[in-house]
Amino acid sequence: MKTVGYAAYSSDAKMVPYHFERRALRANDVSIEILFSGVCHSDLHTVNGDWGPQPYPLVPGHEIIGRVLEVGPDVTQYKPGDHVGVGCMVDSCQECDQCHHHEEQYCRHGMTPTYGAPDRIDGETTQGGYSKHIVVREEFVLRVPEALDLSKAAPILCAGITTFSPLRTWNVGKGSRVGVIGLGGLGHMAVKLAVAMGADVTVLSRSSKKEEEAKAIGAQGILASTDEDAMAKAASSLDLIIDTVPVKHDVTVYAPLLDVNGTLVIVGQVGPMNEFISAPLIMGRRRVAGSLIGGIKETQEVLDFCAEHNIHPICETIRPDQINDAFAVMAKGDIAHRYVMDMSALSLDN
Amino acid sequence: MKTVGYAAYSSDAKMVPYHFERRALRANDVSIEILFSGVCHSDLHTVNGDWGPQPYPLVPGHEIIGRVLEVGPDVTQYKPGDHVGVGCMVDSCQECDQCHHHEEQYCRHGMTPTYGAPDRIDGETTQGGYSKHIVVREEFVLRVPEALDLSKAAPILCAGITTFSPLRTWNVGKGSRVGVIGLGGLGHMAVKLAVAMGADVTVLSRSSKKEEEAKAIGAQGILASTDEDAMAKAASSLDLIIDTVPVKHDVTVYAPLLDVNGTLVIVGQVGPMNEFISAPLIMGRRRVAGSLIGGIKETQEVLDFCAEHNIHPICETIRPDQINDAFAVMAKGDIAHRYVMDMSALSLDN
Repeated sequence: MKTVGYAAYSSDAKMVPYHFERRALRANDVSIEILFSGVCHSDLHTVNGDWGPQPYPLVPGHEIIGRVLEVGPDVTQYKPGDHVGVGCMVDSCQECDQCHHHEEQYCRHGMTPTYGAPDRIDGETTQGGYSKHIVVREEFVLRVPEALDLSKAAPILCAGITTFSPLRTWNVGKGSRVGVIGLGGLGHMAVKLAVAMGADVTVLSRSSKKEEEAKAIGAQGILASTDEDAMAKAASSLDLIIDTVPVKHDVTVYAPLLDVNGTLVIVGQVGPMNEFISAPLIMGRRRVAGSLIGGIKETQEVLDFCAEHNIHPICETIRPDQINDAFAVMAKGDIAHRYVMDMSALSLDN
Repeated sequence: MKTVGYAAYSSDAKMVPYHFERRALRANDVSIEILFSGVCHSDLHTVNGDWGPQPYPLVPGHEIIGRVLEVGPDVTQYKPGDHVGVGCMVDSCQECDQCHHHEEQYCRHGMTPTYGAPDRIDGETTQGGYSKHIVVREEFVLRVPEALDLSKAAPILCAGITTFSPLRTWNVGKGSRVGVIGLGGLGHMAVKLAVAMGADVTVLSRSSKKEEEAKAIGAQGILASTDEDAMAKAASSLDLIIDTVPVKHDVTVYAPLLDVNGTLVIVGQVGPMNEFISAPLIMGRRRVAGSLIGGIKETQEVLDFCAEHNIHPICETIRPDQINDAFAVMAKGDIAHRYVMDMSALSLDN
């Protein structure tokens, strides 16, 4: 099918309208009209080539909310008109141990990212959600619960699952003491999700200037990493830290805040981290871990969890033709919300 | 009581004979004639001031095997003549949650190291095992099983428990895939203990030159970190890595060897570690942790485990007056054994 999107043609290029073809439906495919498309910091990193060379022209976007248009003959879970979502993956081998226990993100043969990767069957480069339509195999389509506001649900598919998965993996529940470093797209979702799980949540930031924002979404307050007395007093006071900082930084500052056996989970920065001191890890059997999005089953769980707890990301709706301005703002630093493109302004006649 | 030992008088001084007093027995104290005293790399670090200024003159040593001389009136577990051990700690608060669940090494109020720290009651600096006698409260005295060779048991009290504890914490058992980085005092014990637990053990080293040594103690072989092909082939093949490297290094090289959810545990280097890349942690939910010795209960368990499985550290017996030569050898790098001083050569008349 013909469609249109916004693509980067090179690593220093602006996003421009791009007409291209989506594949014809395979038996287990779902074709989707995209209604809303979230803008993730990693889209910016990827089109800029920060994480390696890309197959341009490239249409980014992996926070997709849409409506089913058509389904292939073998599709059983979806029918035209259903509200659905697509996240960071569109395929995996479906045969390895990781796929079998619903962790397709760690597929032994590599999952297929929603954009910029070869399709497993025809080898064509996958293209993402900054577009009018997408075609995805049924197993990688999510159901959007009715209680969710479609215009604000898209970031759950990346920012939501990326923080939900480690909160679940490390068994956060009532009374868990959770720290969240950074209050951007990932950080604010980590706070909302952890609060809904019953945790006592503290935001860790360089200063206290976002204290009001943090409290407004349920955090108990901010602990400023520059306040040495407060940091010393807070030693061993957290069970888990979700570290959403998207640039190189030092985990040594935060590690002593963890209680014995506590874990700091890096979800924001994919790349170099500073030198660190092993002593706080050794002196409390503390751990530093990483975590990558979540499996499809768990992504459905976070959508359902958000519906049940009335959690929506803080979104600013923009038109697709404002994407370059949004990228410019994001490149300057943290914003405590997500840009979401309303794709109704994009048509094949653009 | 009067005793004699070897002490450092400053950070650049040689070890010299030192006559000093051990405290009079308290009601719950055990006085011990030291028979064998292990020489740990951390003794060298400490007397050199590498980990901060020290209260000189300082008698190091925290791998102590001896015989009970006298016990205080409240002592119930030991009697004169018993063979006993003392490890890295001689006291803790005994009242906090960590002490209550047998992890005195993480005592909320700080455990008391065997040497170089103020005694909790009289404030006197604790002095370690490079001496003829020691006085220790009953709760920090270990029982040496009969099956152990007294002359080779001392390193179990530090090198043994330091590697045993993470193997237990991370549930190593039959079929576990364990890597051990380094084949020195800690590394060779990690291999022997993990093999006895039923694990498949691979030694990770810069080269394969210690392959014979590794196989002789039960490892399947050596994986050389400089062999890029072999390292790539071994990706995701280990559940746990015990990292005994005692100097600054980069964990990024080893992290990809861990399977999903695998953990690398730093036990050798207390201090700065290199910059690292977060990607291998994120892409497999891998973890980097630290671990500090083990609690008293677990230290008794490793002594009993070694007796049951006929595990002894590889020891080279020396006289106390050879300690400066031993330090000189250790300062040059890894040795795949422990020096143990036979304290019978030391007398109050020295």
